Amino acid sequence: LKVFSLNSNLKLAEDIANHIGTTLGKCSVTRFSDGEIQINLEESIRGCDVYVVQSTCSPVNEHLMELLIMIDALKRASARSINIVMPYYGYARQDRKARSREPIAAKLVADLVERAGATRVITLDLHAPQIQGFFDIPIDHLQGVPILSDYFETKNLEDIIVVSPDHGGVTRARKMADRLKAPIGIIDKRRPRPNVAEIMNIVGNIEGKTAILIDDIIDTAGTITLAANALIENGAKEVYACCTHPVLSGPAIERIDNSKIKELVITNSIPLTEDKKSDKITPLSVAPLIGEAI
Amino acid sequence: LKVFSLNSNLKLAEDIANHIGTTLGKCSVTRFSDGEIQINLEESIRGCDVYVVQSTCSPVNEHLMELLIMIDALKRASARSINIVMPYYGYARQDRKARSREPIAAKLVADLVERAGATRVITLDLHAPQIQGFFDIPIDHLQGVPILSDYFETKNLEDIIVVSPDHGGVTRARKMADRLKAPIGIIDKRRPRPNVAEIMNIVGNIEGKTAILIDDIIDTAGTITLAANALIENGAKEVYACCTHPVLSGPAIERIDNSKIKELVITNSIPLTEDKKSDKITPLSVAPLIGEAI
Ligand SMILES: Nc1ncnc2c1ncn2[C@@H]1O[C@H](COP(=O)(O)O)[C@@H](O)[C@H]1O
Ligand SMILES: Nc1ncnc2c1ncn2[C@@H]1O[C@H](COP(=O)(O)O)[C@@H](O)[C@H]1O
Repeated sequence: LKVFSLNSNLKLAEDIANHIGTTLGKCSVTRFSDGEIQINLEESIRGCDVYVVQSTCSPVNEHLMELLIMIDALKRASARSINIVMPYYGYARQDRKARSREPIAAKLVADLVERAGATRVITLDLHAPQIQGFFDIPIDHLQGVPILSDYFETKNLEDIIVVSPDHGGVTRARKMADRLKAPIGIIDKRRPRPNVAEIMNIVGNIEGKTAILIDDIIDTAGTITLAANALIENGAKEVYACCTHPVLSGPAIERIDNSKIKELVITNSIPLTEDKKSDKITPLSVAPLIGEAI
Repeated sequence: LKVFSLNSNLKLAEDIANHIGTTLGKCSVTRFSDGEIQINLEESIRGCDVYVVQSTCSPVNEHLMELLIMIDALKRASARSINIVMPYYGYARQDRKARSREPIAAKLVADLVERAGATRVITLDLHAPQIQGFFDIPIDHLQGVPILSDYFETKNLEDIIVVSPDHGGVTRARKMADRLKAPIGIIDKRRPRPNVAEIMNIVGNIEGKTAILIDDIIDTAGTITLAANALIENGAKEVYACCTHPVLSGPAIERIDNSKIKELVITNSIPLTEDKKSDKITPLSVAPLIGEAI
């Protein structure tokens, strides 16, 4: 068994290797002068079960192509199995034709990963669990809710309500509420166009309560910060937020810092790069969870 | 028949559409806030033979993913055939295992394009013609030599010798020499590592002659500028250079400007972006050549 890391999430890969009592395999993943990816496996992997850790987070196309070229190299170097650990699955939100003549990029990604030669995929909180069906190879779908819930349990918060920022996330909120023995609420919103969010009204009694907003992905943070502010305006005592995948693009950090969110709890499925730091953010590690799944 | 352009080479796509007496199909190819590609086909293509113009030049991974997602969109929108016009084929230099445990990215690219759903590929001067065999779908392989030769014929140069800057390019030099009724020479060089070139010695009589160096790709321009300078130092009267694919990365323009090359003739398989301008460069269009092939 060998674990390799590409360039998206080296720290997590090291933690996973550590958790299963090994060190990362040696390979170099660099660029030629014209930007083409150059991969060199620096140790033999013939006959090995190989695990490749790569989140397809931003820059998504670079990270995805690194992964595909790595799979090609491993296949040609006679790996016994090629297991992809993709904590964050890029393009997961393009998972259906919402309008006519749209691509379904999430299915394309599945096809490409399989075509390159992957034999199994381990991933975390897919935007839609249906994406599992896009693969013909085995896929392990891990969940971030237990890790996020456990953290909130240690805080001994009182009079909690778990709130989903949209209809799509109610099942996830229900799972967290079960673990925290709390009721759920829903923000009833309409999104005029991508990366822009609009609040409508709040379903559930939040008066005087400590609200915990939960989502799978926080991208530009429009949805979650508007939700948090609406909760406070409508009588919530304080608002925490959490998500599995901190995409945090564009104005996200500024919006979070300026919002009523007291603390934002995330996982390291996507690394917190320097430009994404905020005092409000608490990162939790999914390395033990993934380590168990390997 | 419909022609669409992605973001790599809009001007060439327009010229091709023009040549075959049509206009470009409407589609938008943009980015979401997190960098994911968003493609919207803005007209019906149901039952159509669709041509997509995209060179996979730098940024190669962005351009390749644009192409793959576009193919997915066209397939799901019921195109009758999906024909890829890829004047420059990125990753073509990773066409074999030169060392053990290397990927063969040129084959991976072929697999990905096919898997996404392309039904035919039109390309130009592949780094190795063997790459045609990486595809199971029809591939049309066009040649830049006639266009480049025709240009040099109009200059009425005297006492020409066509020189290949390395062993790999001798067949190409031979083809141009046939058209210009000239002898050929070869630069006998050794390359210590990628993107670095070293001159050894010159095979052929260049004394007092007008040398025309020809290559398929000029990338960092190390090879071609050292070759040109070596030709002048060894008695050539003047040196022209030409290539099909002007990658021109890193120090290329500076090297060309500071070299003994009198004029560099290229094609528009890769667009000459602002940062690549030089008074020495003459661009020729492959639009008529590709137009005929469609
Ligand atoms: N990277 C992205 N950033 C923002 N919006 C996206 C992205 N990818 C897909 N979408 C849009 O998000 C919507 C799907 O999100 P959802 O309704 O939450 O499943 C679709 O309308 C997509 O067009
Ligand atoms: N994008 C690139 N830039 C520079 N060198 C490359 C690139 N892709 C592949 N190579 C190297 O170029 C060599 C192949 O070029 P050639 O010997 O001319 O066919 C191999 O050693 C590759 O490792």
